[in-house]
Amino acid sequence: MYHTGSIDVGSVLLQATQGDALSQIQNDVLLSSSLWVNIALAGLSILAFVYMGRNITSERARLIWGATLMIPLVSISSYLGLASGLTVGFIEMPSGHALAGQEVMSQWGRYLTWALSTPMILLALGKLADVDTGSLFAVIAADIGMCVTGLAAALITSSYLFRWAFYLVSCAFFVVVLYALLVEWSTAAVEAGTADIFETLRVLTVVLWLGYPVVWAVGVEGLALVQSVGLTSWGYSALDVFAKYVFAFLLLRWVAANEQTVAASRKGTAPSSAPADD
Amino acid sequence: MYHTGSIDVGSVLLQATQGDALSQIQNDVLLSSSLWVNIALAGLSILAFVYMGRNITSERARLIWGATLMIPLVSISSYLGLASGLTVGFIEMPSGHALAGQEVMSQWGRYLTWALSTPMILLALGKLADVDTGSLFAVIAADIGMCVTGLAAALITSSYLFRWAFYLVSCAFFVVVLYALLVEWSTAAVEAGTADIFETLRVLTVVLWLGYPVVWAVGVEGLALVQSVGLTSWGYSALDVFAKYVFAFLLLRWVAANEQTVAASRKGTAPSSAPADD
Amino acid sequence: MYHTGSIDVGSVLLQATQGDALSQIQNDVLLSSSLWVNIALAGLSILAFVYMGRNITSERARLIWGATLMIPLVSISSYLGLASGLTVGFIEMPSGHALAGQEVMSQWGRYLTWALSTPMILLALGKLADVDTGSLFAVIAADIGMCVTGLAAALITSSYLFRWAFYLVSCAFFVVVLYALLVEWSTAAVEAGTADIFETLRVLTVVLWLGYPVVWAVGVEGLALVQSVGLTSWGYSALDVFAKYVFAFLLLRWVAANEQTVAASRKGTAPSSAPADD
Repeated sequence: MYHTGSIDVGSVLLQATQGDALSQIQNDVLLSSSLWVNIALAGLSILAFVYMGRNITSERARLIWGATLMIPLVSISSYLGLASGLTVGFIEMPSGHALAGQEVMSQWGRYLTWALSTPMILLALGKLADVDTGSLFAVIAADIGMCVTGLAAALITSSYLFRWAFYLVSCAFFVVVLYALLVEWSTAAVEAGTADIFETLRVLTVVLWLGYPVVWAVGVEGLALVQSVGLTSWGYSALDVFAKYVFAFLLLRWVAANEQTVAASRKGTAPSSAPADD
Repeated sequence: MYHTGSIDVGSVLLQATQGDALSQIQNDVLLSSSLWVNIALAGLSILAFVYMGRNITSERARLIWGATLMIPLVSISSYLGLASGLTVGFIEMPSGHALAGQEVMSQWGRYLTWALSTPMILLALGKLADVDTGSLFAVIAADIGMCVTGLAAALITSSYLFRWAFYLVSCAFFVVVLYALLVEWSTAAVEAGTADIFETLRVLTVVLWLGYPVVWAVGVEGLALVQSVGLTSWGYSALDVFAKYVFAFLLLRWVAANEQTVAASRKGTAPSSAPADD
Repeated sequence: MYHTGSIDVGSVLLQATQGDALSQIQNDVLLSSSLWVNIALAGLSILAFVYMGRNITSERARLIWGATLMIPLVSISSYLGLASGLTVGFIEMPSGHALAGQEVMSQWGRYLTWALSTPMILLALGKLADVDTGSLFAVIAADIGMCVTGLAAALITSSYLFRWAFYLVSCAFFVVVLYALLVEWSTAAVEAGTADIFETLRVLTVVLWLGYPVVWAVGVEGLALVQSVGLTSWGYSALDVFAKYVFAFLLLRWVAANEQTVAASRKGTAPSSAPADD
């Protein structure tokens, strides 16, 4: 049974935006390459990670592997959403913005999917450092707050000031995440005996994650010093390649090679530490 | 204070789609019965489950009961959303689809509410098998990924291929969930002494959950071998009856009758196992 | 690269609604004051809480502090969304409603952000009472269900009855949350040695949270006994001031002054209790 008769304005609109976005993306080599490179790399990562994890047996190592495998799975979903035009829209920039009054393509789906993929990165890091579940929960909540306010900053069309107000709030959430990574979790990783790999991945994450607000600020959504949607998109896409696939590859290679350390680092079995708690 | 004066196009649209959907549902006995049967069964389940859980006192058994009670609560919300037309839309199918160019009613709200109800099922199963919190978290994340990419598959109107690309990604997330249920959690249930009931519920869950992608594939959203929205809706609704209310009833009846087993199966108290960890 | 040429109806609409809402808010002193008071108080709270937590060192106390700090951060995001017009819409009330056929401003963003802020309140309370992680998870799921069905109740335009059906379902989720706060967690707080402060905060939370469904019922969205959007908005805003900033302030002051109690109350170190579990 399907709907006929009266024109359904809502779906016509949905249709129009998606089709519009799809054709604009397909006609822009820079823009579409920034998306398809990630679809290809995420797909390869999934296959590689399944293969790399085939011999992991210990419970905690398998968990880190599972969280890590989720990273390219969420990423391929994210880029399919962008490439199909489903999670892309056109925003008329408010007065004050360098492109005021012009319709700029907004890849708002990125923010939504970051709200699912970045928690997986934090879960993997947190499990590697064997941090408290509650701490993990609070940091992931801050991380989701960061992504959601980033989405709000991207979607505001009524006022230029409000765009930057949300940018600042998003950065405040980011500071909470950074604090956990740089101070609290570092101590936990030393206790868990995973300090070396944690240190590498933490530096990689902190440095790359700082890149996202920079791309926002200089790209079409912020100050528009770069006025190309394709170039801005490549900024995010390049960061994603390193913060997601390279990150996950390094983590997984280490876990596969050091399963004994991971399995043995449970706080509960260390004689000097307090009983495990949630 | 209310808004008068200039016509607000946005809300007119919202109004149009909801009212449109509501009247189409009300005029289609097959479609509306598929929704109201679930509203009635979910309501009865809530009352029955509150009654069944009245004597449960131990902490872990109460938790399983709480998660189980949430299943019909989320379900009744889901079906009220569909029946009212709030979470229903009309999608113009892209070329390549059997109903290309026609407006098909999409019950997109199902996918959204599955993202809340299926984690409760996994939480109940995970607590029954006494699995690691981190493992639970990773499996629930994969499960949410499965629902969200299912939503994307349903909403794509720009390209037939992208619909199936999202379908495949959703299935990949499903494989992660299946792996946990079939391999990892099974072992945990044996250790927790709840292997019998876990086995029953696991088979029920795995078999029924496999039905959802099949309904999608043959229904109006996929290959459209079945071109009736009402019949497709009944496919999902029948699966929901068994995967949600029957599942929850069996679980709750067992927990009420075996509270000692549940209370005693905490790994921390078993002499041979490692100290509890999060 | 930006979009030119054909008019994009979707973004014009988005633009229209946001701009419309922004100007209506700015012209209504009652309404805009209800929003800006919260933006100011949330901002001050963030600064105060960072200062108050500067000397907290123990792991569990830091976690409670982190969750507490998130409360004003989410709140300031919420009110910026409302004040900018991003998360505000115009709803044409269905027949049966006191304002049937009129366009009423709906602050739907409140429900969405409550789905992130109220879990933080529950996380802080749960960690204070040292409850089981699984119990926390189930209660937070019920809480999110409460917020999402509240959102559905607010957005329904097709039928007055369905608005109240969702209201009832939202209240049913609320009963689950209330049950946990009043019965289960109370016992846990006594064991954790934090019964005094938990009791105070629990009473504050239960009493204030009961206010939200009352405001909904008497305000413009429900029976419309109060037909002013500004007054309804002030109802929620006043509740938010006490349930969020005052709540968080009391909690944080106590944690800063009683860090030893918090650090020592971990169940695992108490001689009489069972080994820690997740």
